[in-house]
Amino acid sequence: MGLELYLDLMSQPCRAVYIFAKKNDIPFQLRTIELLKGQHYTDDFAQVNPLRKVPALKDGDFNLAESVAILLYLSRKYKAPDHWYPQDLQARARVDEYLSWQHTALRNCCTRAMWQKMMFPKYLGHSVPPEMLAATLAELDRCLQMLEDKFLRDQAYLTGSCISVADLVAITELMHPVSAGCKIFESRPKLEAWRQRVEAAVGEKLFQEAHAVVLKAKDMPPLMDPTLKKNLMLSLQYLLH
Amino acid sequence: MGLELYLDLMSQPCRAVYIFAKKNDIPFQLRTIELLKGQHYTDDFAQVNPLRKVPALKDGDFNLAESVAILLYLSRKYKAPDHWYPQDLQARARVDEYLSWQHTALRNCCTRAMWQKMMFPKYLGHSVPPEMLAATLAELDRCLQMLEDKFLRDQAYLTGSCISVADLVAITELMHPVSAGCKIFESRPKLEAWRQRVEAAVGEKLFQEAHAVVLKAKDMPPLMDPTLKKNLMLSLQYLLH
Ligand SMILES: N[C@@H](CCC(=O)N[C@@H](CS)C(=O)NCC(=O)O)C(=O)O
Ligand SMILES: N[C@@H](CCC(=O)N[C@@H](CS)C(=O)NCC(=O)O)C(=O)O
Repeated sequence: MGLELYLDLMSQPCRAVYIFAKKNDIPFQLRTIELLKGQHYTDDFAQVNPLRKVPALKDGDFNLAESVAILLYLSRKYKAPDHWYPQDLQARARVDEYLSWQHTALRNCCTRAMWQKMMFPKYLGHSVPPEMLAATLAELDRCLQMLEDKFLRDQAYLTGSCISVADLVAITELMHPVSAGCKIFESRPKLEAWRQRVEAAVGEKLFQEAHAVVLKAKDMPPLMDPTLKKNLMLSLQYLLH
Repeated sequence: MGLELYLDLMSQPCRAVYIFAKKNDIPFQLRTIELLKGQHYTDDFAQVNPLRKVPALKDGDFNLAESVAILLYLSRKYKAPDHWYPQDLQARARVDEYLSWQHTALRNCCTRAMWQKMMFPKYLGHSVPPEMLAATLAELDRCLQMLEDKFLRDQAYLTGSCISVADLVAITELMHPVSAGCKIFESRPKLEAWRQRVEAAVGEKLFQEAHAVVLKAKDMPPLMDPTLKKNLMLSLQYLLH
């Protein structure tokens, strides 16, 4: 059995892995794990990733979790063009720095913003206090400012003049609040120009394909199944404070 | 000017960087940034790390934030022995996987546990609701279980049979709740045996040296300066829910 990727394109890090693999013509079997259907709770999936999260990779008898580890594994194994994860000492350190920073920064507030603004009220029928949402959006704004000031600066891409995995991890993250109707690029021309460069570098078709599911999430009918609803509310509690 | 490391040994990721640099005889100038004194708020430090966090590295005119990026930069630049960050594709992916996982897992609950159990009540005179502390300690327990089940398993070290940077990042994290009196190793013989192996591999002297400050934190007199207290309470609010 060749490479298998367990993904749900509703998930930001899954989209980054998907785009990277497709863009680099890496052959893989797509194993879709629909989180909203609780498909990550099966015993079969726990064999692949005991952490029960997507993305997850299976390559023969080697299993790997964590999007960052998966991206770097793929870039090494399939010898992706250097710009994705450059050999140069300082250039690589810049990519590592971004990949490390985002876990507790952008990832956190993009997930919250999307769930609090859209998924909790519309999909789960659970209203979010306006002051909680306002605090989340303010935090998102602070994170975007850091993204501009500390990472993008006057460069073409987040870590230099070429696109790297950092840009994929970032753009897929930012599309989360966008899917919920946050106009994060409107007042940020530098970030908007970067977004366009990343989309062009990835290719519009692949970019749209990776984001089709999340961009349609706003049109999903409310969840009716009470068991699934209860389970989701439980596992998503942490996004509500 | 050679390599400069901006560290506060009260901080877990700083201890990991410190141990790595010392253990590998990497020559550096130690620039101490005392967080509890607010020394990371100065303009000088913002020049080194606009994110205003430690650890931070300055190597000539190259500045770098994020402990993981710093560890990998040092291991590459100073050609540290392979086991720290192995060349082998799968072995390296295991290290990357741990380094990625910990950001939102162990790091989060070790920081909370230490502050809620010790620093808020004793140093800042701010009492923490018992049910909040209990929830934090339960979460810490779940994380430790994952550390054992998913990472350590029956291996000598977290990512295989040799010590890697993952073990340094993990042990320095765990010493945080230990400093607050959490007996996390007592009921976990496998984790305790691992701890002893890591300490022996690092060398007891260096291990103690890196942890002296945090292990003495419980004896610090309560903070009196009202301005500093207010600033700390503000910036640490996020550890109180
Ligand atoms: N740090 C991980 C995060 C993975 C993660 O949190 N995945 C989410 C979807 S975006 C998930 O599987 N959540 C299911 C759950 O936690 O129950 C990575 O970058 O891969
Ligand atoms: N992800 C960063 C975390 C750095 C970090 O949060 N450092 C803390 C000390 S452990 C800090 O400088 N806090 C000061 C502040 O946030 O004001 C890393 O691994 O280096």
